Amino acid sequence: MNAYQAKKCYRKHVCVWLTLFVFGLLAPAASAEDGYDLWLRYARLEKVPPGMPKEVVVACADLSPTMEAAVQEVGRATGAMLGQALPRAGKVRKRSLVLASGTCHDALPESSLPSEEEVGAEGYAIRSIRLNGKPVTLISAQTDIGTLYGTFAYLRSLAEGRDVSVLDIISRPKTQLRVLNHWDGLDRHVERGYSGQSIWDWHRLPGYIDPRYTDYARANASIGINGVSLTNVNADATVLTPAYLEKVAALADVFRPYGIRVYLTARFSAPMEIGGLETADPLDPAVADWWKAKADEIYTYVPDFGGFLVKANSEGQPGPQDYGRSHADGANMLAAAVAPHGGVVMWRAFVYSAEEPDDRVKQAYSEFVPLDGQFADNVLLQVKNGPLDFQPREPFHPLFGALPHTPTMLELQITKEYLGFSTHLAYLGTLWEEVLQSDTYVKGQGSTVASVIDGQLDGYSRTGIAGVANVGTDRNWSGSQFDQANWYAFGRLAWNPDASAEGIAREWTALTFSRDPDVIDTITGMMMESREAVVDYMTPLGLAHLMGTGHHYGPAPWVDDLGRADWTPYYFHKATRDGIGFDRTVSGSDALAQYAPELQALWSDRETTPENLLLWFHRMKWSDTLQDGETVWEAMVDHYDRGVAQVAAFQARWESLRGLIDPERFEQVAAFLAIQHREAKWWRDASIAYWRSVNGLPLPEGHAPPEHDLDYYKSLSFPNAPGQGG
Amino acid sequence: MNAYQAKKCYRKHVCVWLTLFVFGLLAPAASAEDGYDLWLRYARLEKVPPGMPKEVVVACADLSPTMEAAVQEVGRATGAMLGQALPRAGKVRKRSLVLASGTCHDALPESSLPSEEEVGAEGYAIRSIRLNGKPVTLISAQTDIGTLYGTFAYLRSLAEGRDVSVLDIISRPKTQLRVLNHWDGLDRHVERGYSGQSIWDWHRLPGYIDPRYTDYARANASIGINGVSLTNVNADATVLTPAYLEKVAALADVFRPYGIRVYLTARFSAPMEIGGLETADPLDPAVADWWKAKADEIYTYVPDFGGFLVKANSEGQPGPQDYGRSHADGANMLAAAVAPHGGVVMWRAFVYSAEEPDDRVKQAYSEFVPLDGQFADNVLLQVKNGPLDFQPREPFHPLFGALPHTPTMLELQITKEYLGFSTHLAYLGTLWEEVLQSDTYVKGQGSTVASVIDGQLDGYSRTGIAGVANVGTDRNWSGSQFDQANWYAFGRLAWNPDASAEGIAREWTALTFSRDPDVIDTITGMMMESREAVVDYMTPLGLAHLMGTGHHYGPAPWVDDLGRADWTPYYFHKATRDGIGFDRTVSGSDALAQYAPELQALWSDRETTPENLLLWFHRMKWSDTLQDGETVWEAMVDHYDRGVAQVAAFQARWESLRGLIDPERFEQVAAFLAIQHREAKWWRDASIAYWRSVNGLPLPEGHAPPEHDLDYYKSLSFPNAPGQGG
Repeated sequence: MNAYQAKKCYRKHVCVWLTLFVFGLLAPAASAEDGYDLWLRYARLEKVPPGMPKEVVVACADLSPTMEAAVQEVGRATGAMLGQALPRAGKVRKRSLVLASGTCHDALPESSLPSEEEVGAEGYAIRSIRLNGKPVTLISAQTDIGTLYGTFAYLRSLAEGRDVSVLDIISRPKTQLRVLNHWDGLDRHVERGYSGQSIWDWHRLPGYIDPRYTDYARANASIGINGVSLTNVNADATVLTPAYLEKVAALADVFRPYGIRVYLTARFSAPMEIGGLETADPLDPAVADWWKAKADEIYTYVPDFGGFLVKANSEGQPGPQDYGRSHADGANMLAAAVAPHGGVVMWRAFVYSAEEPDDRVKQAYSEFVPLDGQFADNVLLQVKNGPLDFQPREPFHPLFGALPHTPTMLELQITKEYLGFSTHLAYLGTLWEEVLQSDTYVKGQGSTVASVIDGQLDGYSRTGIAGVANVGTDRNWSGSQFDQANWYAFGRLAWNPDASAEGIAREWTALTFSRDPDVIDTITGMMMESREAVVDYMTPLGLAHLMGTGHHYGPAPWVDDLGRADWTPYYFHKATRDGIGFDRTVSGSDALAQYAPELQALWSDRETTPENLLLWFHRMKWSDTLQDGETVWEAMVDHYDRGVAQVAAFQARWESLRGLIDPERFEQVAAFLAIQHREAKWWRDASIAYWRSVNGLPLPEGHAPPEHDLDYYKSLSFPNAPGQGG
Repeated sequence: MNAYQAKKCYRKHVCVWLTLFVFGLLAPAASAEDGYDLWLRYARLEKVPPGMPKEVVVACADLSPTMEAAVQEVGRATGAMLGQALPRAGKVRKRSLVLASGTCHDALPESSLPSEEEVGAEGYAIRSIRLNGKPVTLISAQTDIGTLYGTFAYLRSLAEGRDVSVLDIISRPKTQLRVLNHWDGLDRHVERGYSGQSIWDWHRLPGYIDPRYTDYARANASIGINGVSLTNVNADATVLTPAYLEKVAALADVFRPYGIRVYLTARFSAPMEIGGLETADPLDPAVADWWKAKADEIYTYVPDFGGFLVKANSEGQPGPQDYGRSHADGANMLAAAVAPHGGVVMWRAFVYSAEEPDDRVKQAYSEFVPLDGQFADNVLLQVKNGPLDFQPREPFHPLFGALPHTPTMLELQITKEYLGFSTHLAYLGTLWEEVLQSDTYVKGQGSTVASVIDGQLDGYSRTGIAGVANVGTDRNWSGSQFDQANWYAFGRLAWNPDASAEGIAREWTALTFSRDPDVIDTITGMMMESREAVVDYMTPLGLAHLMGTGHHYGPAPWVDDLGRADWTPYYFHKATRDGIGFDRTVSGSDALAQYAPELQALWSDRETTPENLLLWFHRMKWSDTLQDGETVWEAMVDHYDRGVAQVAAFQARWESLRGLIDPERFEQVAAFLAIQHREAKWWRDASIAYWRSVNGLPLPEGHAPPEHDLDYYKSLSFPNAPGQGG
């Protein structure tokens, strides 16, 4: 319908109506497409899909808040997708959508529910079956939350435009704790946050419950996230005071129907700061008593409180080592406080000594392997994916597989501290898939990181994945449209660590942008290549941590004089006129010895080390040649150029979608890609200018010189870059 | 239509259509009612109003961006209000809405435009006239921006539901500079901001232009605001560097079509901090040259840059007195730098000495009156409404009327630093009306503050009003729905300082909440009483500055030991066992001498001093009696109780509107009123507990004792209260 037709229609109601119908405007007042609705936008379906139910029925009379949430989500989704919410009916009829659970199945025999063996406490079944001879779609589970997860899965299928006439789906999470870690301060500053402030409006809590909290809970539940640590790991004890616990309780009340437990970060010195004690020694009975009493108090506010997340003796945080005690001593003391209530302690393994001259990437392993078996059974050790710090590429952390007696959680960083903040397109699904599918070889081939953290390898009784959240007050939650995909992928991989990054990207794209297969192909293609592009223009060939000091925005490979050596880029690249790279073989720091013999054999040899980890493990001459005959220097420059060109290609591919994506989101992505292109070139130019100042080599032929001289790049400063340490 | 009918209608399209029509859902996809749309929400009209035009015509072929904005606003507004945007036509026909200006009137004779005398450079006329015999509505002005203002005024009438068939309106602003002052840091922290972060997303500028900037410009233009100072008066010189000027220019480009000029705060020591000079002495030629070059540079980025806003030698900010120079020396040096480009300097009079033992409220007058006549003619002195600091009630500032040779701007605080942050309902229109209509008597009766600042009294060649913005990233912009009214009232009073606060409240309510006369009455009534309620429960009888240290959240009248005496509440109330109040008559600090003799006569006598300023000017015994026979102590307690009861009444009145206001906004207001009620009681209880600890008097009969003892109130701390000094 063009403007001319619209004019002819003017004041002719039937025509107006037709217009609205054709263009899908009959959907209930939808907010504009600005990203707020995430992957739950439930875009209007072009036609009623085969197998669409006629009404929704809950198999019991008294609905739990969780069941209520499931029914409401069906109404919201079908209203938006079909223009008319599926009506709610009292009894099962032909083509009903039936929701049931172990505690909600008055209307159907228990035998129609999936068994505990099939779905556990959180899984679900979605099946096309007959009830009393009537064909229905049954979403069922042992628990109400399982049914809610199944409902979201069912609505996802509908929203992807799938045929839902014959379904036989069983799904259950492979990990138990699927937790977002918010690095949010009580002043609403988010450390490493690039999407506005903390969504926790502490000042107005508990008096005002922002409807956004509910939408946040819906989004998490839709991808199976079942825990939220509210506060920064660089912790503030104030959150443990009654005034704040009241606020925490208000959030927990919102999250509870969505199966989400609240966790808090425990500042180890809290007994001194808010408890009036003179020590925080974990072996001091008064300290242990204080924490026990504090835990008891917390549980009066939040009966299903999940437990504590702790960063101790790391980067200035207090911890048990301040008193000559071990990490196990500290963790176990806290674990004892929450154990009676069913809580856990998630103890972070991200530690490195302020004094220790040893290779920083070796230290967590050295610290924790001797403690294996000493932790209480409600402690999980939370280990970053790599041994350094969420770099664009690192090898997997050698602690995975090295702690057979200590449940080991994987910590991923959803927020892109080191991958271009919110404006660079960098789909992290591929990075995480690379980590999860890495083979540790600790019990022979196939001992993947995924099999460690889902408990298969070592039979852990507790399992989990944590993701450092990228959620803030920005209207689109995550700072950019594409960064929503990383939140989504985190949830999907937490549910199934063996899921495919590409499959997740396709699914997310269909839900978020368009069901058009060409659009899905284009966007998924961009996403799948995006992280490698970032590696190319930031840290090729296994380089790492070359980012600007403090804020980590932009390149600063030249920095070599900070308070401690292992915070400088120079520490990690060690470039001189002779060569570049960190020798981590036996001739160097021997960090390699922390990996299984199979990997040591592979990675100790330059020839068999994957090129993308070369300078992580080896010091190379600039003139050394790689497999394809290029020198190290030529290869580096090639990677930089490839990364920049790749971003230019993303811009062109996105431009090809103009008109197929709603305008506000389209323009935002286009603007961000332009920023990314400019910054990719900045990374390339600054890096090349610096390396040349070190190696004195001419630029390989056919490559453009940097736009400015090195002094220019060194002169740039960013005092107000977002997300700096809190 | 109830649920039953809805069910009967299921799948009957005509019925669906009727439903939608009846309930006004045919409006183009509107965002949910969450406050984002402000007073520009253009709610669906129940019926087409008398005189509704059939199409919109612009009287020239090439539209300026400003005219384009006007046409688009007509389309947006009529589309939302009528379900169908007014079509745009090429030539004038019967019942056209015609937009024209001095530079855009091909289609009509110049004689049909209002004259320069009638409307000046920014005013407009809206008239029902005949063009070539055809009856039309003509919105016209000397300038395009005048026409845009007229368009907004016309759409306001439509949105209020007025008859627009016979119009003959002329309007022009009484002040020239109508400026929002953002106290926004480059890190996005807003000093005294209670509505999220700064909306200036510096990090992503200029690469990403948030559509919100345009909506912000629309909102400002709709109420005649024509200037925006982007940065905190506690200034950061970094904004004057090229990297930031590029960002400033991007914002200025967005604002330009809406008639909004950009201003920046000038940190007086910038020549040292970013210029490499060793001094910022305003009489040093190198310093003056640096500022001239800097101004020239700024104008290359922003050709219509408005000028500088300066806080100097105040609360630790650098300034000319650091070099033994006067405020005039400092201001004139900056003024010379921007003068060639048509810029101005707005120099703040909010100064008080760090060493000076004199009554703080006297100091600005003492400082600036001797300088009257010494300022360059592109300098305006910007004076807060009262001599202290944006208190719930103060007398007007004695500088108004005392500077006949220095254009004096009024500075109001839209953000509610001292009136309950974002959660207390406190309509400031009444406060500002009280100030504007205060009689200075400097040229006899009728010498109102309004007549000073609009230039009538002293014939100022430059005039202006500044308002400290309450705009942030919160979805509703201002932290609360009701705080939007203060932004609105600021613009309307800046346009016409003699406008009625009640009229503005009624207008805002109709645009923002409902056209229902009963709803308008109820809400306007609440608004009109709201500020006095805050005075009652916070600072009755002329008390002031009793708020918590630093953050100004909640009561802390007991504080008496800060770094400087005049930052303590005790300094201002001076309560002892004997009495309470600050003697500012001749027997005390004689601040009263700064006012006209008529006011001195009135206010030096306790009997004729208005009760609401009593303790501002007089020290009283607790047992002294007031007009109605009550003692000071009894009256104070009465006021506290009245304030709390008033808030309870607001809650009941708001509750009576349930179902008449859209749910999300209704619930937010209800939650905030509950917070206000709790905090009003906290103010009352803490204050009474403290006063009793000082005066030892029993609580007057019939009044409830405080809920807690004084120690409890003293023990409360709020380290993370929002908006603290930046």
